[in-house]
Amino acid sequence: MIVTELTEPECFSFLERAWFGRLACCKDNQPYVVQLGLVYRERCLYVLSTLGQKIEWMRENPNVCVSVDEIASQADWTSVIVTGTYRELEEPRYEDERALAHKLLEKHRHFWENPLAERQAKVGDSLIDPIYFSVDIASVTGLRATPAS
Amino acid sequence: MIVTELTEPECFSFLERAWFGRLACCKDNQPYVVQLGLVYRERCLYVLSTLGQKIEWMRENPNVCVSVDEIASQADWTSVIVTGTYRELEEPRYEDERALAHKLLEKHRHFWENPLAERQAKVGDSLIDPIYFSVDIASVTGLRATPAS
Repeated sequence: MIVTELTEPECFSFLERAWFGRLACCKDNQPYVVQLGLVYRERCLYVLSTLGQKIEWMRENPNVCVSVDEIASQADWTSVIVTGTYRELEEPRYEDERALAHKLLEKHRHFWENPLAERQAKVGDSLIDPIYFSVDIASVTGLRATPAS
Repeated sequence: MIVTELTEPECFSFLERAWFGRLACCKDNQPYVVQLGLVYRERCLYVLSTLGQKIEWMRENPNVCVSVDEIASQADWTSVIVTGTYRELEEPRYEDERALAHKLLEKHRHFWENPLAERQAKVGDSLIDPIYFSVDIASVTGLRATPAS
């Protein structure tokens, strides 16, 4: 297996294909990591969520880290790690960008089902407001492993 | 799609099959998340690593969160989230547990290749000491999504 570092343009072109990742946030020195659907556009990762622990924590501390990877096997994978800042796409201030996030995310089937269903499983809400946010990317690194030929 | 919460025993039995996850740690309110190989045994997740950002951060702040999931599709997945504490398996104090971790981890092909190759890609070390650690599990939660029939 050979592992090489990705350049920044290679990381961004990898993110363009992504629809899923894991987001880490933290509060009072306690980290928290969750899986979520996401889409990339121009140094932003767009996410649909519902109110819950991660949103409450990121409102308090907007520093986040996102891991996006494709794993074919233990010796054949690509992993990109994004460091960035949480920015909630509130209306009316971010109305256009919120509409863009919605449009990009809805291409992925079930994009809205997961956060809503998870939230309902946890709190039994029948009425849930969607929250759109961006992770504004500050830096990105990546590694790719390929089987030795 | 129906999402249900897993009980604690269901979470642990899911972890028994796991060989891979994402670990989040944090320092000075900045989270960091990385993919890694892992194995579960008796409320511990065992990991082989090399010295690097995550180890340096966890030595400073041992609070960690680990996400382990199996995703068949966007409507068919299981996700378990572990909160716990970093404990480095130093010799001679943890010699027996270190040997156990080695034995459990080596069942997974490439288990030692990934961290070593990643480290070499990053720093060009030719000689690298492996570090074994445990995430001692404090709490665990899980969700399972199944397609609506």
